[in-house]
Amino acid sequence: MNGLPGPEDKNPASRCVLLSGGVGGARMAEGLQRALAPGRLSVLVNTGDDFELLGLRVCPDLDTVLYTLADRANPDQGWGLRDETWECMQALAELGAPSWFRLGDRDLATHLVRTEALKRGRSLTGVMADLARALGLETRILPMCDEAVRTRVRTREGLLDFQDYFVRRGQRDRVLEVEFAGIRQAQATREVQEALAQADLVVLAPSNPFVSIAPILQVPGLRRSLEESAARTIAVSPIVGGRALKGPAAAMLESLGHELSALGVARLYSGVVDEFVLDLEDERLAPAVASLGMRPRVLPTVMSGPPERLALARALIRP
Amino acid sequence: MNGLPGPEDKNPASRCVLLSGGVGGARMAEGLQRALAPGRLSVLVNTGDDFELLGLRVCPDLDTVLYTLADRANPDQGWGLRDETWECMQALAELGAPSWFRLGDRDLATHLVRTEALKRGRSLTGVMADLARALGLETRILPMCDEAVRTRVRTREGLLDFQDYFVRRGQRDRVLEVEFAGIRQAQATREVQEALAQADLVVLAPSNPFVSIAPILQVPGLRRSLEESAARTIAVSPIVGGRALKGPAAAMLESLGHELSALGVARLYSGVVDEFVLDLEDERLAPAVASLGMRPRVLPTVMSGPPERLALARALIRP
Repeated sequence: MNGLPGPEDKNPASRCVLLSGGVGGARMAEGLQRALAPGRLSVLVNTGDDFELLGLRVCPDLDTVLYTLADRANPDQGWGLRDETWECMQALAELGAPSWFRLGDRDLATHLVRTEALKRGRSLTGVMADLARALGLETRILPMCDEAVRTRVRTREGLLDFQDYFVRRGQRDRVLEVEFAGIRQAQATREVQEALAQADLVVLAPSNPFVSIAPILQVPGLRRSLEESAARTIAVSPIVGGRALKGPAAAMLESLGHELSALGVARLYSGVVDEFVLDLEDERLAPAVASLGMRPRVLPTVMSGPPERLALARALIRP
Repeated sequence: MNGLPGPEDKNPASRCVLLSGGVGGARMAEGLQRALAPGRLSVLVNTGDDFELLGLRVCPDLDTVLYTLADRANPDQGWGLRDETWECMQALAELGAPSWFRLGDRDLATHLVRTEALKRGRSLTGVMADLARALGLETRILPMCDEAVRTRVRTREGLLDFQDYFVRRGQRDRVLEVEFAGIRQAQATREVQEALAQADLVVLAPSNPFVSIAPILQVPGLRRSLEESAARTIAVSPIVGGRALKGPAAAMLESLGHELSALGVARLYSGVVDEFVLDLEDERLAPAVASLGMRPRVLPTVMSGPPERLALARALIRP
């Protein structure tokens, strides 16, 4: 007995919904996919980072989840495809086209297929289902909505499109405000509502609370579906020991006026989830989390590799 | 003295317009580009073969001319790029996308840049000027018009889009009729009119008379610009010894009710050009060509390599 649940712990009846941004959420999705029976995981993915490049609809978070779950992601960077080539990108640069966002040759196929399907009138939800099926996935990858929502951040340089801030300018600007253009016209899809209604576990991934999880929760109708769900809800802190494992979450907590700690994140999720997972390193914050009305859980949350992802997923599934 | 004109034969004042389809025309363009002073060649290119693939505007003849003149064409097949890779295509096939028309990774950059520029409202003429400039060309590559014209062929299987007939079905259908959808709404661009007005030599490349040269000549206004031009006009036969060097020209001559010979082509161009070039192999047809009111010229027309292209180009330039 090593303390880890064996295969007999897989409850084939349990259905899980994960709210996810990009790399960190995708890694958690991968652990949950292995921990659950096939087809029992739905990943609700932020689309606020989506943008148009060279006429193509690029969906960074959706594709990171897709590639990770299909075991095609680049293991070093966490996004993009393994064994990718960059011939088209190089030719684009020679033609003077923008090259700040790097599109790999194989990745391009995803954007081409998606863009054309959208133009033919297929929904983004439908397109992602097609792509997931083509890559052999049973997990459902659900865009948070089918309407275009665009995250923008206010900085001293003015309002920036998210990828401008995130990739082109390398997250160097202090974020003073975050907005989700178009979100009032969006609505939770039938697929998202059904997934939440059928779930017995909803997990908020350790993704950025402001630009990955917030837009999902703000899609009209989605929060209500979550509240009406009978599922146990649990959030995993993206902040460990006062640092973000990846991306600008720590800088945003600070610049947006929150405490730079897992507790600062817990306060954001107060009233949204039943349980809040702290890393071992933050065990001392457990009483403060409890005082927010959430059950604190202390677990090793740093998913350094597939075994850690699976162990964390199994721990989350266990009540 | 080897009989070939030396550099002193380059008349810097002479301006040449070539009417061209794909591979054969591109090879002639390449010879003319070397034979003329820089910037003195304009190539008027058929766009009836253009089509949309995965939302991208693909212009096979324009790109073949572009790549050939920029010395980037695949020397074996005559179209596409040298040292091309096919990663995106392979990924597209895995996603179930159509793969009957092969798009190379580097070639894709051209289609992406063009499609986006067109979407932004740039004309096809403007886009091709941008691409030619990016690849360092001084020769002008002019689409026959900016409007969408689509060549279709009537067969026993019904009306087929040109690329359906040409690539997907491998030219196996007997062509009973050719039509250029949208050509009545097209018009000769200012750039095409100017090039014809300024030319002292207009060459009809040994391209397919029915699907490469005919659409160009049928663009409203273009034929009049050609007739009003003071240029000497000359056509090169695509049929040598009763065979087409490439493509379905011979089969079309036959199925559309013409004599399968260079003379059959000469009859099509009677009244259009002043001179008609026969290959050495067809010298016996010279009197018949003369009787059509065209000056017959007998030259080695088979452009097996760069030296032959240059020699033919120089011979055409010489009155």
